[in-house]
Amino acid sequence: MATDFAAIADTASNERPEDRAWLADKDHFIHPYTDFTTFQQEGSQVIREASGVTVTDTGGKAYLDAIAGLWCMNLGHGRTEIADAMGEQARKMAYFNTFGHSTNVPASLLAAEVAKRAPGSLNHVFYSTGGSTANDTAVRLIHYYFNRLGRHAKKKIISRNDGYHGSTYFASALTGIHGVHLGFDRISQDLVHHVSAANLYRRPAGMDEAQFCDYLVDELRQRIHQLGAENVAAFIAEPVMGAGGVLVAPAGYHRRVAQLCRENEILYIADEVVTGFGRLGHWFASEDRFGHVPDVIVSAKGISSGYCPLGATLFSDAIHEVIAVPQAPGGVLSHGFTYSGHPVSCAAALATIDIIERENILSHVREVGPYMQTRLKELLRHEVVGDVRGDHLMAGIELVKDRERRINFAPDSGATHKVFVAARQRGVIVRPVGNVIVLSPPLVISKAEIDIIVDTLHETMSEVGPALMAS
Amino acid sequence: MATDFAAIADTASNERPEDRAWLADKDHFIHPYTDFTTFQQEGSQVIREASGVTVTDTGGKAYLDAIAGLWCMNLGHGRTEIADAMGEQARKMAYFNTFGHSTNVPASLLAAEVAKRAPGSLNHVFYSTGGSTANDTAVRLIHYYFNRLGRHAKKKIISRNDGYHGSTYFASALTGIHGVHLGFDRISQDLVHHVSAANLYRRPAGMDEAQFCDYLVDELRQRIHQLGAENVAAFIAEPVMGAGGVLVAPAGYHRRVAQLCRENEILYIADEVVTGFGRLGHWFASEDRFGHVPDVIVSAKGISSGYCPLGATLFSDAIHEVIAVPQAPGGVLSHGFTYSGHPVSCAAALATIDIIERENILSHVREVGPYMQTRLKELLRHEVVGDVRGDHLMAGIELVKDRERRINFAPDSGATHKVFVAARQRGVIVRPVGNVIVLSPPLVISKAEIDIIVDTLHETMSEVGPALMAS
Repeated sequence: MATDFAAIADTASNERPEDRAWLADKDHFIHPYTDFTTFQQEGSQVIREASGVTVTDTGGKAYLDAIAGLWCMNLGHGRTEIADAMGEQARKMAYFNTFGHSTNVPASLLAAEVAKRAPGSLNHVFYSTGGSTANDTAVRLIHYYFNRLGRHAKKKIISRNDGYHGSTYFASALTGIHGVHLGFDRISQDLVHHVSAANLYRRPAGMDEAQFCDYLVDELRQRIHQLGAENVAAFIAEPVMGAGGVLVAPAGYHRRVAQLCRENEILYIADEVVTGFGRLGHWFASEDRFGHVPDVIVSAKGISSGYCPLGATLFSDAIHEVIAVPQAPGGVLSHGFTYSGHPVSCAAALATIDIIERENILSHVREVGPYMQTRLKELLRHEVVGDVRGDHLMAGIELVKDRERRINFAPDSGATHKVFVAARQRGVIVRPVGNVIVLSPPLVISKAEIDIIVDTLHETMSEVGPALMAS
Repeated sequence: MATDFAAIADTASNERPEDRAWLADKDHFIHPYTDFTTFQQEGSQVIREASGVTVTDTGGKAYLDAIAGLWCMNLGHGRTEIADAMGEQARKMAYFNTFGHSTNVPASLLAAEVAKRAPGSLNHVFYSTGGSTANDTAVRLIHYYFNRLGRHAKKKIISRNDGYHGSTYFASALTGIHGVHLGFDRISQDLVHHVSAANLYRRPAGMDEAQFCDYLVDELRQRIHQLGAENVAAFIAEPVMGAGGVLVAPAGYHRRVAQLCRENEILYIADEVVTGFGRLGHWFASEDRFGHVPDVIVSAKGISSGYCPLGATLFSDAIHEVIAVPQAPGGVLSHGFTYSGHPVSCAAALATIDIIERENILSHVREVGPYMQTRLKELLRHEVVGDVRGDHLMAGIELVKDRERRINFAPDSGATHKVFVAARQRGVIVRPVGNVIVLSPPLVISKAEIDIIVDTLHETMSEVGPALMAS
């Protein structure tokens, strides 16, 4: 009730809704990941409109969106075809539940289209509303699966330090980025165990890539042994770690881990929320990029190109055979969300798949992705840049205050935030995450636009870098 | 990869996508709450289009949707105005993240509009994608709140038997409907404790309503004492239980429970996912219907009239003051979803609020709601109907095989499912949940349409009832 509408009314420019937005936001919207040291003074940047790779704020300033909204606007902004598909579906049949024996056209067709593009026998889709709920679903149904098999102790999940798996209470427990647990509780510590990140930049001294891979596989083998394979249900990993700093694993890592899991009847969950639907140049990265077929693939973001909330968890035939049978008398598969298979979200996803194919987006990514990685390596010429890494259209630039010893800036130094602000002033939005500047542009980005991003980062590092090093 | 497209191609009527949907669904879509004893044989009913209170399947048969999709299509189907608002937003600015100091126009304005209509000082909105994530958020941020206060032991949540709070792993732990845990694990049993449902129909023999209220309040007081108030963070309850069987608490219950919570510094979370945005004739039911102001209100479903996935958790000024301050150096409020404050979902919600006001939907519900409740009471003339109850546009009809002793049918009798099937044959979709037939029609329903629902249920009970009683 405390909204100060009088104050809003006093604003000279209050006639457009967008001019009321800033104040409404500051007073009423609790943002994810807000830094409250400055929020009340600064308020938010209000993004008003967007088209292609460009977003524009209410001040009329345009920016190159080098993060695709948040790893998700893969086909770029302002895609009329997706918007029209959503509007049309909302008019025709916006929603009816998909519980029990009820369904809708877009959700059904999309399930088949996704299965067709998934590797191996990943033919069965459970829908949710984003990556968090899709990961949550993966574990909940895997636990159900082992209960159905009578293996009631086989429940532990091995995740990785610096892995990001979402923000439901359980998905946050899967997440291995220590910073995101600051001030928050962790539930299910008996169920979730973490092993090392596949962080080549920070591998133990003296190891080459192959030795580091051995080291990681050995660590996992030992952890399985410690926990008892009979107690471990699944291993979860992103093909390339995203929010943890864009970490590309050593060659062969995922294939060897998958083999180790198979030997121990541990299911492999590939969290392809970021990598699925084209970011690495393929529908899914697990098989086409890293040579193995997981038991479960988790998808979100790119599946609907961010236009409408959607998550999808894909299960193998082998898992489906176990869970898709009657259980106790009167028992049903008691999991799911009101919006599982929402028709509008699924219509957005069908339009997305259509565009990816018609415009040969995957080929485009396979062409411009390596170009972006190559050009970004130039940033190593700046003293403040410790590492540049990534795969196709996801990249991370790690800042260090001591390059030789690979020492990061202090958490409260705001180093990456300063780079973010300086780049934004020059018209490019990047994402500061811990010590890393993350890039994940829309997949439709051109080489010329990649040049703008890299050139802007050069200027930014030249401006900000020396001051940071001197601080 | 196993989709049998050859088989689909062989289908004579495969030219329309909707004709391919049935097979695609059966092969690839894992539904929430599926009964796998019959799914492979029967497949799904495919809902193709919808308008007003009517949905139509791919066979061309129309049904009166007496459940509003799933308690959510509050303004009815085919609302061009909402669809247009979504399409327009998707074209203009479909998505940009709301993390940190970034926002968008619809999410900001919606937060203010929701706060304006919420009771007390519930002025601060955290967005998610549905009821599950909104409840999950409520608890996660309440735990964070008590950590900020240095009260690290004050974390337990008291929920109620038969309460339904969602399907993330943690929200399912909050849920007190025992049937939905069949075959599934429960996490966080140290954190979540259940007290009795406020089930007047099944209250202990010899108690009147006021005595039963005393009994429930005493039980909660004792539970708080057993757990230690210093260990209890919150109590969570739906104003009227929904999926647990549409249970209306004794008069004064919520107010007295809220008072008890206040005395023990326990936060009251009102799960208004079903009751919010008009179903009980008010924006929110807690204050206007039940006379108390909660510390947290959880909203979803009706907030966007089901047109696009959206959840919102409302926090009081007192809670916000504690969580909206800087924590550790470099620390931020590390909770949130990619789609927190999705512009398209928020645009749907703004259009929903606009229609509710312009068409005086709340007044309409206050008029037709009591009419529906009164007419439904007629069903008590059927021997198989043990109880009819509800509030405004949510109602439950409980089936019994022994009316005097209030004994339900066995879980595998399929009693309510048979009523569901028989009513559907007559053109009305109701919802079987356990032993209860649930009704939650769109808020725009007319008295004439309510008559159709009630008359159809009369016919259905006449047909199905005697056979069930004889079984």
